[in-house]
Amino acid sequence: MANELKFIDALRALATHPAARGLDDDAAVLEIGGETLILTHDMMAQGTHFPANADMADLAWKLVAVNLSDLAAKGAEPLSILLGYALGEDDAGFVAGLRDVLEAFNVPLLGGDTIRAKGARCFGVTAIGRATHVPVPDRRNARPGEAVWVTGALGRAMLGFEGQTEFAGAFARPVPRLAEGRALAPHVGAMMDVSDGLLLDCWRMATASDVTIELERARLPVADPARLDECIRWGDDYELLFTLPEGFHPPVAANAIGMVAQKNGAALRLDGTTLTPADGIGYRH
Amino acid sequence: MANELKFIDALRALATHPAARGLDDDAAVLEIGGETLILTHDMMAQGTHFPANADMADLAWKLVAVNLSDLAAKGAEPLSILLGYALGEDDAGFVAGLRDVLEAFNVPLLGGDTIRAKGARCFGVTAIGRATHVPVPDRRNARPGEAVWVTGALGRAMLGFEGQTEFAGAFARPVPRLAEGRALAPHVGAMMDVSDGLLLDCWRMATASDVTIELERARLPVADPARLDECIRWGDDYELLFTLPEGFHPPVAANAIGMVAQKNGAALRLDGTTLTPADGIGYRH
Repeated sequence: MANELKFIDALRALATHPAARGLDDDAAVLEIGGETLILTHDMMAQGTHFPANADMADLAWKLVAVNLSDLAAKGAEPLSILLGYALGEDDAGFVAGLRDVLEAFNVPLLGGDTIRAKGARCFGVTAIGRATHVPVPDRRNARPGEAVWVTGALGRAMLGFEGQTEFAGAFARPVPRLAEGRALAPHVGAMMDVSDGLLLDCWRMATASDVTIELERARLPVADPARLDECIRWGDDYELLFTLPEGFHPPVAANAIGMVAQKNGAALRLDGTTLTPADGIGYRH
Repeated sequence: MANELKFIDALRALATHPAARGLDDDAAVLEIGGETLILTHDMMAQGTHFPANADMADLAWKLVAVNLSDLAAKGAEPLSILLGYALGEDDAGFVAGLRDVLEAFNVPLLGGDTIRAKGARCFGVTAIGRATHVPVPDRRNARPGEAVWVTGALGRAMLGFEGQTEFAGAFARPVPRLAEGRALAPHVGAMMDVSDGLLLDCWRMATASDVTIELERARLPVADPARLDECIRWGDDYELLFTLPEGFHPPVAANAIGMVAQKNGAALRLDGTTLTPADGIGYRH
């Protein structure tokens, strides 16, 4: 972890272009020719992000979906993806899942690179989108007095991972909130997707915005109330987390879960108790 | 190899958007907002593309440079890169080389993904450029009667790899022909970069254009004439290969090396002898 943070700090010193958003946001935002492009790249490695026996069709879906979720958090319309692919077991399964996800979200595959690699496999997807609203939502813009909202129920991916049939799809084939992101973009203060657990991503939004987020436990929407603590720490849900002026109701189904306050020592409080990443509030990878 | 070709054929069936250029070209070409974007992605894996003891600074340079070379072949001006990075040995060295290459070619780093992976490391770079001339050069446009040209001398990377000091930089820190690509873009029939050996890349251009390329051995510019056969088969030179109307002289330093003919059985002939990839004419990865 120390090495990772040090490396990212070193990259940040190179990424001085405003489009990079200080590497603090989900995606880069680049203006060109009267349009605003949203650019994001995610990698997945065998043994770290998926097991050797992973279903390759589901993996292809997820690899694309997580990138589209970053576009959703920017209110962007997907334009294209590029794929970096290491050949191995069940390449045909991967192609089948890729076809499914590209068709489901109407995104063209435009290119990429195929390699033959030894050992653990590694995949990368770059997604390019077009902003539907400027200014483009930013996780750094949560302001004191705003309400904090989240779409959906947290913990669905966790229950699916554990084998609950009802939630199998939530884990295997998450659906990026593209339509919701576009509907929300003109209204939100800050917005980001929840990929690593609600608490951790709230902490990240608060830290990036230099505010305190105060969450109310009783208002957190979870798939299994008996396991609320796990549901709000597990990742892979790909919901949207956003802030709105107090009293403003979002144009999509969502729940208000707390408030943004002036920074008062901690970035995140749950029912008044300070939480930090050292408390195991999410999944870091 | 069979699996790789089968996989790419399956991807091609998905990549039906015209911007994908049938996955036959070096990069995708996407029109948006009155601009034409060029998009390319390359991966490198430890054990396949570089040894475990590779100099990480040089590797960072090369990873970016090979993507910029794809932009050069499109006459594009680089706008940004995204980096996918697996942490490991000498991350600081990688950052140093990355700084060098970004500064050398004035390209901003806009984002990407950093992962902790087990086993062999893997890196990916996505480069995004802006076309400086439309139509954007295409490797599929070589036409009978055109002359075939190449910049630079082939085999410099090979000699550098073998330890010849004079050519060390040609292997470790190749320079993409960005200025040459921009100067050539308005004039060329077909254009592509030479990354896998002159003969193989000529064969690819001819195949993509459905023509025959006839090369003259005596006209091939190589770094070591005594080893011409190796120089025109080794990769990693990142020169530009292009066609021009007969009698038209390019605005950059280059050598005419042959002619494009109507397809007559073979894609590639060298002094009248047919050559195919089965003859070991280049580096395939």
